[in-house]
Amino acid sequence: MTTNEKALQLHKEWNGKLETVSKTPVKSREALSLAYTPGVAEPCKVIAKDKEAAYQYTIKANTIAVISDGSAVLGLGNIGPYAAMPVMEGKAVLFKEFGNVNAVPICLDTQDTEEIIRTIVNIAPAFGGINLEDISAPRCFEIEERLKTLLDIPVFHDDQHGTAIVVLAGIINALKVVHKQKEHCKVVVNGAGSAGIAITKLLLTYGFTNVILCDKTGILSKNSEHLNFMQSEMVQLTNPGQLTGTLADAMQEADIFIGVSAPGIVTQEMAASMKKDAVLFAMANPVPEIMPDVAKAAGVRIVGTGRSDFPNQVNNVVAFPGIFKGALEGRATRITEEMKLAAAHAIAGLVPEDELSDTNILPEAFRPEVAQVVAEAVKSNIHA
Amino acid sequence: MTTNEKALQLHKEWNGKLETVSKTPVKSREALSLAYTPGVAEPCKVIAKDKEAAYQYTIKANTIAVISDGSAVLGLGNIGPYAAMPVMEGKAVLFKEFGNVNAVPICLDTQDTEEIIRTIVNIAPAFGGINLEDISAPRCFEIEERLKTLLDIPVFHDDQHGTAIVVLAGIINALKVVHKQKEHCKVVVNGAGSAGIAITKLLLTYGFTNVILCDKTGILSKNSEHLNFMQSEMVQLTNPGQLTGTLADAMQEADIFIGVSAPGIVTQEMAASMKKDAVLFAMANPVPEIMPDVAKAAGVRIVGTGRSDFPNQVNNVVAFPGIFKGALEGRATRITEEMKLAAAHAIAGLVPEDELSDTNILPEAFRPEVAQVVAEAVKSNIHA
Repeated sequence: MTTNEKALQLHKEWNGKLETVSKTPVKSREALSLAYTPGVAEPCKVIAKDKEAAYQYTIKANTIAVISDGSAVLGLGNIGPYAAMPVMEGKAVLFKEFGNVNAVPICLDTQDTEEIIRTIVNIAPAFGGINLEDISAPRCFEIEERLKTLLDIPVFHDDQHGTAIVVLAGIINALKVVHKQKEHCKVVVNGAGSAGIAITKLLLTYGFTNVILCDKTGILSKNSEHLNFMQSEMVQLTNPGQLTGTLADAMQEADIFIGVSAPGIVTQEMAASMKKDAVLFAMANPVPEIMPDVAKAAGVRIVGTGRSDFPNQVNNVVAFPGIFKGALEGRATRITEEMKLAAAHAIAGLVPEDELSDTNILPEAFRPEVAQVVAEAVKSNIHA
Repeated sequence: MTTNEKALQLHKEWNGKLETVSKTPVKSREALSLAYTPGVAEPCKVIAKDKEAAYQYTIKANTIAVISDGSAVLGLGNIGPYAAMPVMEGKAVLFKEFGNVNAVPICLDTQDTEEIIRTIVNIAPAFGGINLEDISAPRCFEIEERLKTLLDIPVFHDDQHGTAIVVLAGIINALKVVHKQKEHCKVVVNGAGSAGIAITKLLLTYGFTNVILCDKTGILSKNSEHLNFMQSEMVQLTNPGQLTGTLADAMQEADIFIGVSAPGIVTQEMAASMKKDAVLFAMANPVPEIMPDVAKAAGVRIVGTGRSDFPNQVNNVVAFPGIFKGALEGRATRITEEMKLAAAHAIAGLVPEDELSDTNILPEAFRPEVAQVVAEAVKSNIHA
């Protein structure tokens, strides 16, 4: 049986991957009177006087919602809210299993930006954080930004920021291995959707100065047409030389390539045109922009992908559970750039310097300390 | 330490009464590839082709949302969504503990009818049913009715229908004890909010013909002023003699009194004015409309309350877990009048005829078979 066949069969057996479980049994009248009426009125009265007490007496303290509209699910595209549920349930499972954060999967029966925003605002009281997931660009940018303004709990679009944090962690370690300085690196990011733009932003925040953003039309510059509002913002911050041309043009003499785009679009020649000691992350899934062996044969020194069957897997699961764990434990009201940078450094720091190598720049996702280390880094930067 | 003090302390220790738990551990790359990417794409693809498959592959099969806007919580009134959370969590706990139904508490940051309806429609794809809770009348009637039309999953306002079902179950058994026929009974329902109206409707559906609905202004008749739309509908169906007057007037020669109103408003004289072998349910909480010993001293034969420290507790927990359990197992798209009547009969039937007495008309809530018996009754009436 293939993995896919087995996954389908298991999903049927599970009949939903999550359950809600009471922290206290209710097997007697006394238990009922404590967990429900009349005793339950006491915490209600305390919270009615002080909303903050919800963090002491309710699940808000350690529960987030994992919310999608089903518009950009995995590589499957706009499959709608019902078909998106297995992914959101899976994500909720990972939040609990990796970060001990309770998570409720919610798929929205609307893809209208205003409706999505209003719905999430309306259901927010029960939750300590909102993880947005698989919402297509450019709507995802506006939805996240507006929700950040409207809500006093952290809102985090993992496809953007989780990816960006793990990519940055990998790049931090890769540059240690190849002994390069961020200030001198030419970076090409291919894919100008949610992940590509968030990666570009975080690399700029970290201190890279020469980042070139490409999409399927080639290099994005101030002269590019058909840019959405976020891409228009990005061309002001990237491509300092205002290069024009194709992805192949961009990649010439590049130190770093980061692909969040499409299978097989980087040729061996394009990889070979990069600088010495090049770093290439080909994260299209399941088939990368270029296969690692091909990139290596072209002279690229460090190759990462999204896959677990190659070295240097760029896997969001090392980031998002710890980020929300830290944000909830520290009662953060938002996830700031400082917290993202701290998370990236913490993830990078999980690989000891003397173990860093071309094929070991990111920590194993299953190391039990990962989420706690990331959470601590996030917590200590809440008021930064 | 009082129950209330202990409840407050326990709520702090619990820090939320519910958690989400994965049905499958994710401790290896293989487990990750089955519960999440790439394997998770398989059930997504199946559901994308056939929405119904969500019931096979996702939590929709056995998960409901417990939703309130915090506008009418217990006897505390309009305390808002944050303060309502302990009650919704408690209700979710009871769904799981009594009916093995997974339940997610959601409190809404809006009390606007249209916003509530739209929000619930938008989040419905994740859920197999919607339990509305503690929403004030008359908004609760419109919200429930509109949602029933808009959604293809069961929508059930427990304050209305759960209460009505258990009251009817108790009345069915009480009439067996006192050997009276429903057709010959004069019934007074005091309280014309969500519970009182739902009780009245279900009693009429069951076959009572002489039901008099009262509120704090006294008997409701076609001449009453300031009726809301639902009360206006009810005066067409109740009070066949078009009586006017006070609650005391209504209670004269009544066979059955059902109070879902306010503490202490039934005097001993009013109770004494009822017919021989009277049945009186005084369900104001925690202080009933009349204390059982006072009603008994006035000659009432069977007295029920909402409290667990008196006989004949009218407790919704014998109804709602089994109702959703049955509706979900039978894939009902709505909870019909037939299903409610069947549930009431099933609950009544849980007390064997030879054990029925003045002080034993309703089953113990903690009997383990209650939810299953109710669920079976609901299931066998899904297509009735």
